[in-house]
Amino acid sequence: KSMCKYTGSFPVSFVCCATAYLLPASSGEEITRGFLQELVNILFTYICKSSQRSSKVLDFHHPHQLKEGLDGFNLNLPDQPETLEQILVDCRDTLKYGVSTGHPRFFNQLSSGLDVIGTAAEWLISTANTNMFTYEVSPVFILMEEVLLRKMQSIVGWSSGEGDGIFCPGGTISNLYSILVARYHFYPEVKTRGMGVLPQLGIFTSEHSHYSVKKSAAVLGLGTENVVVVKCDERWGLVPFYVNATAGTTVYGAFDPLDAIADICHRHSLWMHVDAAWGGGLLMSDRHRMKLQGIERAWSVTWNPHKMMGVPLQCSAILVKKRGLLRQCNELGAEYLFQADKHYDVSYDTGDKSIQCGRHVDAFKLWLMWKAKGSQGFGAQVDKCLENAEYLYDQLQRRTGFELPEHSNVCFWYTPPSLRGLPLGPDRDTRLHQVAPQIKGRMMEKGSVLIGYQPLGAKVNFFRCVFSNPATQQEDIDFLLDEIIRLGHDL
Amino acid sequence: KSMCKYTGSFPVSFVCCATAYLLPASSGEEITRGFLQELVNILFTYICKSSQRSSKVLDFHHPHQLKEGLDGFNLNLPDQPETLEQILVDCRDTLKYGVSTGHPRFFNQLSSGLDVIGTAAEWLISTANTNMFTYEVSPVFILMEEVLLRKMQSIVGWSSGEGDGIFCPGGTISNLYSILVARYHFYPEVKTRGMGVLPQLGIFTSEHSHYSVKKSAAVLGLGTENVVVVKCDERWGLVPFYVNATAGTTVYGAFDPLDAIADICHRHSLWMHVDAAWGGGLLMSDRHRMKLQGIERAWSVTWNPHKMMGVPLQCSAILVKKRGLLRQCNELGAEYLFQADKHYDVSYDTGDKSIQCGRHVDAFKLWLMWKAKGSQGFGAQVDKCLENAEYLYDQLQRRTGFELPEHSNVCFWYTPPSLRGLPLGPDRDTRLHQVAPQIKGRMMEKGSVLIGYQPLGAKVNFFRCVFSNPATQQEDIDFLLDEIIRLGHDL
Repeated sequence: KSMCKYTGSFPVSFVCCATAYLLPASSGEEITRGFLQELVNILFTYICKSSQRSSKVLDFHHPHQLKEGLDGFNLNLPDQPETLEQILVDCRDTLKYGVSTGHPRFFNQLSSGLDVIGTAAEWLISTANTNMFTYEVSPVFILMEEVLLRKMQSIVGWSSGEGDGIFCPGGTISNLYSILVARYHFYPEVKTRGMGVLPQLGIFTSEHSHYSVKKSAAVLGLGTENVVVVKCDERWGLVPFYVNATAGTTVYGAFDPLDAIADICHRHSLWMHVDAAWGGGLLMSDRHRMKLQGIERAWSVTWNPHKMMGVPLQCSAILVKKRGLLRQCNELGAEYLFQADKHYDVSYDTGDKSIQCGRHVDAFKLWLMWKAKGSQGFGAQVDKCLENAEYLYDQLQRRTGFELPEHSNVCFWYTPPSLRGLPLGPDRDTRLHQVAPQIKGRMMEKGSVLIGYQPLGAKVNFFRCVFSNPATQQEDIDFLLDEIIRLGHDL
Repeated sequence: KSMCKYTGSFPVSFVCCATAYLLPASSGEEITRGFLQELVNILFTYICKSSQRSSKVLDFHHPHQLKEGLDGFNLNLPDQPETLEQILVDCRDTLKYGVSTGHPRFFNQLSSGLDVIGTAAEWLISTANTNMFTYEVSPVFILMEEVLLRKMQSIVGWSSGEGDGIFCPGGTISNLYSILVARYHFYPEVKTRGMGVLPQLGIFTSEHSHYSVKKSAAVLGLGTENVVVVKCDERWGLVPFYVNATAGTTVYGAFDPLDAIADICHRHSLWMHVDAAWGGGLLMSDRHRMKLQGIERAWSVTWNPHKMMGVPLQCSAILVKKRGLLRQCNELGAEYLFQADKHYDVSYDTGDKSIQCGRHVDAFKLWLMWKAKGSQGFGAQVDKCLENAEYLYDQLQRRTGFELPEHSNVCFWYTPPSLRGLPLGPDRDTRLHQVAPQIKGRMMEKGSVLIGYQPLGAKVNFFRCVFSNPATQQEDIDFLLDEIIRLGHDL
């Protein structure tokens, strides 16, 4: 026990009970500052490295390798405390064996990039460590969320008298909210009596929409079989109530014709939802927002600022046109948590709107980035992403060995020389199907660049290149194509 | 445009386009480091202040006051970017008008405290900015989650051959998972065909259980009416399938008799869930874990390390005894996102277990704190919280003007002198009901301390004091009682 002393200035070298000397321990300022400063040095080094093209995108190891404890990086949980020095080593190792999602050559996910302002905002959020359920504990964050939701509603095109919404943990949950609220809108008795008293309801969505529509149907008790995938119209006995239109599909980045869908929904009094998780960012761009024409006619909209707008994960909003519905649908009058006799305007307590109870502060990241960039800055950022996509598209057409269909996300096959003479048909397809996984495997081992691939429908595995990373320049796109050829020409 | 130059060393003084000079901009290191350093100074000052008893717990303003823009703090979103200096001022103001949940005198919520290691972990998580859906982009975090879940399962008392689970955004979502999985376990056809093909299902829970059980019943299409609140046994025609037992109720901190409930569930083949969102932390304490005896017989458990274990928000786990069920229940085989032909062991991709798609990294906070404290440190921290509760309980019995029922959370009324002579009955109740809200209102205006209150059942408004904040000492408890008397003696 006598060894548990803080023996001098930082870096700390004592052997145990380190955390007992951090704040809120009395006289804990110095050691806390020293520890946090060391951590910030590690994080800053990581941020710098992430932006350097010469650094690896990832340092790949298989699960069993990491579990065995590489270079002393031990994942197991101890009974006794570790030293603060070891904690800092753990932090460094955690980053070392992770994936640099902010690297200019990370093309793997719809969410990428490392926005310094957004990161700073998240540091503040975690330091504030509070909860979005009441104004009482989150006065500023609750108001920021309201300001953002109103702004997003006006950008969607709703009038100032309409619109409601909430930030929630990801686009899948946002889409789940949309179906939940739509069901309640048409059948409010479902809340108390359950699905047993409702007719067999049907949902319409497109073949390429995100799987969250089906997942929500399973969770909500609607059943995945009752999700009608458009083009399969021989269905029986369902009462349609909800149509999901996608603005920016996951794989192709395709946009459903929102106005045409809105006409049909209007004619049949159906709830129209627009899943703009990916495409919503385009609303910030004067050049590209026309791709979402008709979105103002939607009854609900999913929009993920953590995708094309580059906000750190997670930041997703569900917007609902009809005010009050979200609360009516989800409130349970738990007065023991949401007291109506508090001394302030309790309409600012959002707990009754949410299907969560505690809720993380996600709005502040978007708010602070909006302050730092302005609406114009977000517009320019989105334009840049789309310029990168255009550049890649042009390059693919100029080079040999690449084939592509036409879409917003740039999806393409690489055909190694050995396949180029083969006739189109199942044999060639079987071999082409294996090319992208093999190149991706080599890419991950090498750590030079990261891009996703997938099959879709009758199409064999193809690469999907998405642009949401503001760090990406044309040279990175050239590098990507060169690297695919380097890693794949011998297949 | 010519004004958009970085004109020297930090603090920055240029007027616009500030973010254009931050990383990943070339030569952005210096300005990025300067900006983050300034931010860290602000955050560190806040952390120090939060731990000082002389500082206010909150600086309360009504919504309309904050919206009007106090001292230039403008919540509105600009078209043009702000300067980095203004961004830092915004950060300072955001903290200034917020609530210090880490203050030793913040007793308001089940989640409180400001753990330096946990905060550091969250800073790292936001810097890493990745997503828990695949091993591909979160190799280290996925394995840490697995290690934690196994450890928690063994602490609950499950054998090494059983147990599955996932971290998710809050205890309400964890509880929702438990009902979702239980329904699927008994009626797997619900996933594809919906609730229409099932009998009218019933859920059992206690009167004082968290409202998330009812909320989940509404979301999942079961209907809130079909949640049977124990003691109301005149129900009709329901097929019971799920029983929720609470280990640590929200208001009283009461524990259901888990072994007795497990006996009944076993006899009738019902799914037994234990909502240990609040009480789960006691499992870390050798002295107190017997309050959860029988939890090892549960089929699923909710456990929120962000409550008594002091992990920053959010950190909640749902544990499921039967391995594989979580994946079967929630997978949709979206091969375009979760490719089976990747070059590593894809059983580590958790996306198919979750009802989310993207998922925030919450596990790392708990992992790093576990490294820093060890199992023993967490045990000691929990013991300290319970000692504080005992101390308050003793003090309340010694002082005049306080009444209390007996519970784990310390719940009590303060009766001002003017009420003390009154006979028990509706008149006194009506007046006593207004005491806690009035004291709380004064408390918030003064910002000296923060504690929650609520009515429950036939009981009029009472204070609920919960201890999860490691910063709290006995002097803070004395202060709380003195302050209640100061603010309430004239009522």
